[in-house]
Amino acid sequence: MGIKTNEFAPLKNVKVKDGFWSKYEDIAKNVIIPYQWEALNDRVPDTAPSHAIENFRIAAGEAEGEFHGFVFQDSDVAKWLEAVAYRLTIAPDENLEKTADDVIDLIGRAQREDGYLDTYYLLKEKGKEFTNLLDCHEMYVAGHMAEAAVAYFEATGKRKLLDIICKFIDLIATRVGKEEGKIHGYSGHPEIELALVRVYKATGERKYLDFCEYLVNERGTEPNFFQQELESRNFINMWGGTDKKADTVYCQAHKPLREQKEAAGHSVRAGYLYTGAAHLAVETGDKELFDTCETLWDNATQKQMYVTGGFGSQVHGEAFSFDYQLPNDLSYTETCAAISFLFFAQKMLMCDVDSKYSDVMERILYNGSISGMALDGKHFFYTNPLETWDEQNKRVPAFRHNKIKRPGWFGCACCPPNLARMITSLGNYIYSTGDNTIYTHLYIGSDAKVKVGDWSVTISQKSSMPWEGKSEFTLSGGSYTFAVRVPFWADKFNLSVNGKAVEYEVKKGYAYIKGDWKDGDKVTVDMPLEVKMIEANPFVRADSGKVAICRGPVVYCLESKDNGDRLSSIRLVGEADFRCEKDEELFPNSVSIYAKALKKKAWETNDLYKAFTASFDEIEIKLIPYAFWGNRDDNREMAVWVRY
Amino acid sequence: MGIKTNEFAPLKNVKVKDGFWSKYEDIAKNVIIPYQWEALNDRVPDTAPSHAIENFRIAAGEAEGEFHGFVFQDSDVAKWLEAVAYRLTIAPDENLEKTADDVIDLIGRAQREDGYLDTYYLLKEKGKEFTNLLDCHEMYVAGHMAEAAVAYFEATGKRKLLDIICKFIDLIATRVGKEEGKIHGYSGHPEIELALVRVYKATGERKYLDFCEYLVNERGTEPNFFQQELESRNFINMWGGTDKKADTVYCQAHKPLREQKEAAGHSVRAGYLYTGAAHLAVETGDKELFDTCETLWDNATQKQMYVTGGFGSQVHGEAFSFDYQLPNDLSYTETCAAISFLFFAQKMLMCDVDSKYSDVMERILYNGSISGMALDGKHFFYTNPLETWDEQNKRVPAFRHNKIKRPGWFGCACCPPNLARMITSLGNYIYSTGDNTIYTHLYIGSDAKVKVGDWSVTISQKSSMPWEGKSEFTLSGGSYTFAVRVPFWADKFNLSVNGKAVEYEVKKGYAYIKGDWKDGDKVTVDMPLEVKMIEANPFVRADSGKVAICRGPVVYCLESKDNGDRLSSIRLVGEADFRCEKDEELFPNSVSIYAKALKKKAWETNDLYKAFTASFDEIEIKLIPYAFWGNRDDNREMAVWVRY
Repeated sequence: MGIKTNEFAPLKNVKVKDGFWSKYEDIAKNVIIPYQWEALNDRVPDTAPSHAIENFRIAAGEAEGEFHGFVFQDSDVAKWLEAVAYRLTIAPDENLEKTADDVIDLIGRAQREDGYLDTYYLLKEKGKEFTNLLDCHEMYVAGHMAEAAVAYFEATGKRKLLDIICKFIDLIATRVGKEEGKIHGYSGHPEIELALVRVYKATGERKYLDFCEYLVNERGTEPNFFQQELESRNFINMWGGTDKKADTVYCQAHKPLREQKEAAGHSVRAGYLYTGAAHLAVETGDKELFDTCETLWDNATQKQMYVTGGFGSQVHGEAFSFDYQLPNDLSYTETCAAISFLFFAQKMLMCDVDSKYSDVMERILYNGSISGMALDGKHFFYTNPLETWDEQNKRVPAFRHNKIKRPGWFGCACCPPNLARMITSLGNYIYSTGDNTIYTHLYIGSDAKVKVGDWSVTISQKSSMPWEGKSEFTLSGGSYTFAVRVPFWADKFNLSVNGKAVEYEVKKGYAYIKGDWKDGDKVTVDMPLEVKMIEANPFVRADSGKVAICRGPVVYCLESKDNGDRLSSIRLVGEADFRCEKDEELFPNSVSIYAKALKKKAWETNDLYKAFTASFDEIEIKLIPYAFWGNRDDNREMAVWVRY
Repeated sequence: MGIKTNEFAPLKNVKVKDGFWSKYEDIAKNVIIPYQWEALNDRVPDTAPSHAIENFRIAAGEAEGEFHGFVFQDSDVAKWLEAVAYRLTIAPDENLEKTADDVIDLIGRAQREDGYLDTYYLLKEKGKEFTNLLDCHEMYVAGHMAEAAVAYFEATGKRKLLDIICKFIDLIATRVGKEEGKIHGYSGHPEIELALVRVYKATGERKYLDFCEYLVNERGTEPNFFQQELESRNFINMWGGTDKKADTVYCQAHKPLREQKEAAGHSVRAGYLYTGAAHLAVETGDKELFDTCETLWDNATQKQMYVTGGFGSQVHGEAFSFDYQLPNDLSYTETCAAISFLFFAQKMLMCDVDSKYSDVMERILYNGSISGMALDGKHFFYTNPLETWDEQNKRVPAFRHNKIKRPGWFGCACCPPNLARMITSLGNYIYSTGDNTIYTHLYIGSDAKVKVGDWSVTISQKSSMPWEGKSEFTLSGGSYTFAVRVPFWADKFNLSVNGKAVEYEVKKGYAYIKGDWKDGDKVTVDMPLEVKMIEANPFVRADSGKVAICRGPVVYCLESKDNGDRLSSIRLVGEADFRCEKDEELFPNSVSIYAKALKKKAWETNDLYKAFTASFDEIEIKLIPYAFWGNRDDNREMAVWVRY
């Protein structure tokens, strides 16, 4: 069974030791996880209270009060637990484990005897369980809990949360499914699909894979379930208003997934659904479904992706729009959407080792995901525009979703814990093995143990990425193929073994070196990083006449803090004389880029329009990595795309 | 009393005979007025029924049924009647006058005995009159009716409608006003202010000017009337929902007008309020109020005006946003807003003959107003974007207010009849006299009789505008100064009398020729029209690196119909070799502009991003007058601003 050709080395076998990412791991360990714990317990001043832990306490009968928060409030606890699980995988921490165990115990006490577990329904809408799959996220919450449970089981060997969640999922499966008498439905917010495959792999129980398959196949069929459900509720939505028509595109149910050709609707829902479907396909051997996923991947990444690895062009529905519509200042580009495509890429790589997936993974990692977090680990962007003008955001409602600085926490706090679990599980994405080959998907410094063919191999990767393009792998002996990705941005790609050039074959963006390796053999990848002016496909109207400055996988941006207001008045010309300089103001070892440019002079008159005259100042501009923007005060504008 | 220095020659004394505008007058006569009459009577197939006349029939007890339409539905009848009045001023038309008289009789029969006259309240909300000035437009409707009444009185000498409306206004003034026991309020949608000055001038009754003064001065004072009114309605708005806070910016009541420095809120409401206030100021001699109007004029036209003379940068609240925020594809730029600023300009000119007002009048006339109407006179734009991409309008809700083609009629049909009355009253805007001077504000072919000092002067203007820049005035004898505007766009301005250069003085954009004129003296103004690349102030981020192509007062645009899709891929370079050609496809004598340009080649690969390469096709682009865009099928994009 299955069409997978390779399996990712699990986190427990891959220890990240990287100049760039270890810093983020430290932030996760020292700041995000503790800070989010405080937030979940409503102890962060000046930010909206989460109430997430309190909801569980009330449900467990250990506190008085009412449910507060979104219908999916429980999922924030789940994502925090998942991050904790990964953190414990990386390094034991008795206190942290104790806190997590206590939360899990609390969750267990909150669970109803029949297995039901969603505090929104336990507290606020008793008896209405499974009456609003469209809006109410029950299965979404179950999915996140299941992910946490699997991660915690894998980290600690403790089954308690997994048992709790399996009981809940088993209950759900008695109510939802294809059999007569069940609700022939699925969740308005996909997530449980990808979680079910993980539960299947952790427990070995096929029923979870089957349930996933049902959910993926039922979705979007006619007559439309959500429309029927809405009618059965007399068209009353969860906010008490009426909707005559379910927005089926928004919730990924406008047509069966297998019939879809374009990424559409809410971009996080899309990313989660695709991830689940792709994982299902590689585990069940469903080539048709895998091909569907590839079609959607290609559409999303070749027609609807921002250069930063951001997805979702519009605030309306937090959604995809259509091919090549990629406005930079209106963009939604939710942090979670970028992360969901990282998950999706990983599943696709399990069947098809093609750099079109891993290049995007890298693009997301260094740009559109971590841009969601301030470097203090305590402030977060929900949306990640590629261009922004503070006054416009504040004064024009169409731009209000975008901010010039990251706020502390959100009422709808999906993004911060999503970042936490991404950062702490990074080891999961670096290596995979199959067909007697070790695949290196990411250049991230790490020590790994992998099984390839009959060989147990240790890999020690030292990498200077993303600031320099050199990575060195020390391998243990064996007879296997070692494959490394040739990034899309690498004009020069020098591969050597023990200092000598080596023969290799390149297939789908990976360089394959066959070999009988001796302990201590060193594979060196050297890809000189050059500053590049990237342009967008000419069908992207928003980027016409502009370039994005990139160096390796890192996308750069201008901030008015460095370059004055009116960033749109800046134009690169000719060779621009790009100059790179180490700049540690924001991040250790970071590289800033300087370039010669022209900036339109301000007028001396009050005119609004007049005959064109060429009047420019020659200036030097400074660009910083996009991921680091918005970390300083007194910044009023930011732009990735610069006129050329 | 008054600070006015000059008075506009009334329509009855100015007959437009113009190569450009007579065509629009013909459209108004032959198409718009009859077509709108059909629309008001619900006889236009495939468009939303207006129900406006039917509402009056029901109110008069001559038909059965319920009120339908917006709260301001009556105003469409008023604006149509006003256009008819102007039409009858231009040329008698017995049948049309009979139809109008019948409508006026119907309105009279619909009026309640106490004078009340708004079919929404007469039919739908009996007894709730004057309980929702914020939303319900009673005074707005009264204002439009009053404008129609004054125009009809001036056109025909018939007082009936004027008497009807004065009775209604007198009733309003017993309910609303500063005296104890009255509602200390004003209308959510300004309009009655400007109408009251007209009623004052037509009737000579000072009370109407006083009521206007009350309304202007009361507006925006603290405690805020709209907030209090909302509270008195238990925060229930007219749609049955609740609003905790009145949007006072939207309805021009965030602060007293005299304290305002920036044009803000709903742009049509702003334009109407400013017009009324300016007219009030010049009639009462309120210099402080006039200065306020000038401040707001300067802000609106020097910081928030589109190059087409469009106003209103955002769909949210159909409103102004803030200085220099002028997005081209998101713009609202309602047809009515442009027209309202034409009214405003005229009032300002009465006190201050400065081309900063009349230049904008001309800009609006040739561009952002008539762009609201298809050349068939039957299709109308509510909003007038400066750049549009059909697929984006259709698929992305943020852009949904903009269209690629004009629909037939609107549920909210404010714009079509506003255009009708503007076009038919154009003679009102051309000449004014005062201080023994005849001022020519617009180069529009016309025969006029004006009174200047002790002289009755006839002026015959022949003009080739806007296609050529020559205008010739034949004057009758007398001792007076003849002044003509020196347009902002005229690099060369040749003035001659009887073929000979003449001495003249230029003040505030007007050239003044003193003279003892003989019958038949000819003043010739020759301003060679050149194609110009106009740039926006560098603070206008949306126009950075772009130029608008203009010739004389006419702003041009690209359509994909002529230039292929991806207009954003087109870039003008160097001298562009502009070439003008007569092009009658859309409009008699129209001039199209051709230029050399580069167009980015489409890529041969499916990439979304790649390293920049210069790969362009040399093409010839065609630009047409912006006012004429959207008149052909198979057009998918339009753009005013072109990359340079």
